[in-house]
Amino acid sequence: MTQAVSLDLGSRSYRIEIEAGLISSTPKLIAPFLRRQRVYILTDEVVEALYVDDLSSILVEAGIEVAYLALPSGEAEKNWSNLIRSVEWLLDQQVERNDLVIALGGGVIGDLAGFAAAILRRGVNYIQIPTTLLAQVDSSVGGKTGINSTQGKNLIGAFHQPSLVLIDVDTLDSLPERQLLAGYGEVAKYGLLGDEEFFWWLEENGPAFASGDEDARIRAIEWSVTTKAQVVEEDEREGDRRVLLNLGHTFGHALETATGYSSRLLHGEGVTIGCALAFELSARLGLGNREAPQRVRRHFDRMGLKSRLSDIPGDLPSAETLISLMWQDKKVVDGRLRFVLPHGIGATFVTDEVPQAELMGLLNDHLGAKL
Amino acid sequence: MTQAVSLDLGSRSYRIEIEAGLISSTPKLIAPFLRRQRVYILTDEVVEALYVDDLSSILVEAGIEVAYLALPSGEAEKNWSNLIRSVEWLLDQQVERNDLVIALGGGVIGDLAGFAAAILRRGVNYIQIPTTLLAQVDSSVGGKTGINSTQGKNLIGAFHQPSLVLIDVDTLDSLPERQLLAGYGEVAKYGLLGDEEFFWWLEENGPAFASGDEDARIRAIEWSVTTKAQVVEEDEREGDRRVLLNLGHTFGHALETATGYSSRLLHGEGVTIGCALAFELSARLGLGNREAPQRVRRHFDRMGLKSRLSDIPGDLPSAETLISLMWQDKKVVDGRLRFVLPHGIGATFVTDEVPQAELMGLLNDHLGAKL
Repeated sequence: MTQAVSLDLGSRSYRIEIEAGLISSTPKLIAPFLRRQRVYILTDEVVEALYVDDLSSILVEAGIEVAYLALPSGEAEKNWSNLIRSVEWLLDQQVERNDLVIALGGGVIGDLAGFAAAILRRGVNYIQIPTTLLAQVDSSVGGKTGINSTQGKNLIGAFHQPSLVLIDVDTLDSLPERQLLAGYGEVAKYGLLGDEEFFWWLEENGPAFASGDEDARIRAIEWSVTTKAQVVEEDEREGDRRVLLNLGHTFGHALETATGYSSRLLHGEGVTIGCALAFELSARLGLGNREAPQRVRRHFDRMGLKSRLSDIPGDLPSAETLISLMWQDKKVVDGRLRFVLPHGIGATFVTDEVPQAELMGLLNDHLGAKL
Repeated sequence: MTQAVSLDLGSRSYRIEIEAGLISSTPKLIAPFLRRQRVYILTDEVVEALYVDDLSSILVEAGIEVAYLALPSGEAEKNWSNLIRSVEWLLDQQVERNDLVIALGGGVIGDLAGFAAAILRRGVNYIQIPTTLLAQVDSSVGGKTGINSTQGKNLIGAFHQPSLVLIDVDTLDSLPERQLLAGYGEVAKYGLLGDEEFFWWLEENGPAFASGDEDARIRAIEWSVTTKAQVVEEDEREGDRRVLLNLGHTFGHALETATGYSSRLLHGEGVTIGCALAFELSARLGLGNREAPQRVRRHFDRMGLKSRLSDIPGDLPSAETLISLMWQDKKVVDGRLRFVLPHGIGATFVTDEVPQAELMGLLNDHLGAKL
């Protein structure tokens, strides 16, 4: 099974190709974007061990020279220091305006390499070859690039669309189960935020997806990417529509900051906990369906996803501190804290009118349950 | 006399206002761009001493809160370290997506602050209040922002158009004469690259401009900015037309790198020397008018501008090294060195077919004259 999704953004349009074994077709697929027969790969040390040799051989056999840089792995590495290292390395390699950078790896590499490409000579082309589920369904599509600040996630960055996204679902076989499930959290998010039919499909096919069914994986990724592409087409630069994609992220980012972007909490785990909290908050405020929180949690539990603050190992800061971390998020607009909340499954809205007391109450109830 | 130039770039359009004493009108002029009554000023320590108190008082009197950061002054400060400092300071100040950053200062501050605004939360609005002639006629207009790498000038950056440019020609009174003349080099460049009528006007009115005639200054700046705006409108992201603005810059940037971005050579001085060399190279290649180099040099000499390698104090590297520095410039495309050369005054073209031997000969002749 092969799927392709087009993201239509005028002169910045591109295709997202989804297939098993797609990496071996890289030379043919990137040919239209090469002005010189030479590419520059940014990756991390984990992905380096898995895929760089294969990808390099395939490219070199096709007559394309390869240079690559492997950065340390992990969300904590998405920082100024590795950005500088990447940009200066690309300059060392004498990368020119019309050259092509390849981001090979998970979301950290995709965001970091995309940002390096965005600011190198005020913008060079790049393609995404995402190797984690999270990156395949979320960060590789839509052109958001960037790094973290000590003050919060993704606070520094640029909108820079890739020229092409190559999703090889075979790479999911090498993912640790925890990472696969964290990525599945983002897949489920697309069902929750905009398409109840997709959520039904996931309730039915989630287990097949998790156990490695290739068609289920391609279909779920295609559905996720299509949902994201539609939203990005309507609102490339996050005016209003695109913010809906952040369902669960106001909570999730604060939790990630509170746990220091460490292995205590993966991004996708923050998102599933955040989604569960958003459904609960909405129900408590009388804005959302009262049965929805339980249905969401039931699916998450069945799939083995995190959905409670008590699923995070170790101590968490107080509700006050978590709320102050939310204030540092990009979601603050005109001095008001903004949430994406659900009316029900498949129907979300944006509000900046969540009473502080309700938010505090929700977090304290969950933190209390944790004690 | 008041002049205003509109730069038409669709949703990214903005106005450039030119007037004596314009800084006092800042509150009224920025009002349409304020969502909160609060602004964040990035400046340098030299400009801080001259204008921050005045500008702050005017803003505070109008009910607008002010926070500012003054960075060290000079081209060598346009680096990663001050970029990080600026971005993290803006985050500390909890700057939000719809807030307004003000770049108050010369080209270094304009480029650095504009770049910080470009990557802060993937882009916040900013306005330019350029306080040097160079910044007024060049860097504040057109949306090129960035920092230098040790590998070359402006190799890292973004296209990020300001929301407004306020040019107060009174600020030129505080400029050291050397800086004023260096800035005048960029003014003269607009005559040389695209408008012989403007160059005639400058041959006539240059001395009045230098001696402080307010109307001559407003007219020259307006003419320069209009020329730049027309080119930027046709080619915002430097596809082909915009590159013409780089007349003199391939030589100029290499010389600036060779002198370590130090006070040995100001940017505008590099440009006038580069323009003179470009006219001479073009004549040597039989591509440019044979009388033009002398006419250019005559005007530069009359105005007290640098036009020869021997005008740079201290030692210069060899012709080979200067050429290798040109190769590190953004002007390299598809592995070829690209020059903007003149057919004559007011008529320029782009070529990547300058024989290495001719280039080497020209530089060696000039370096020899220096010995």
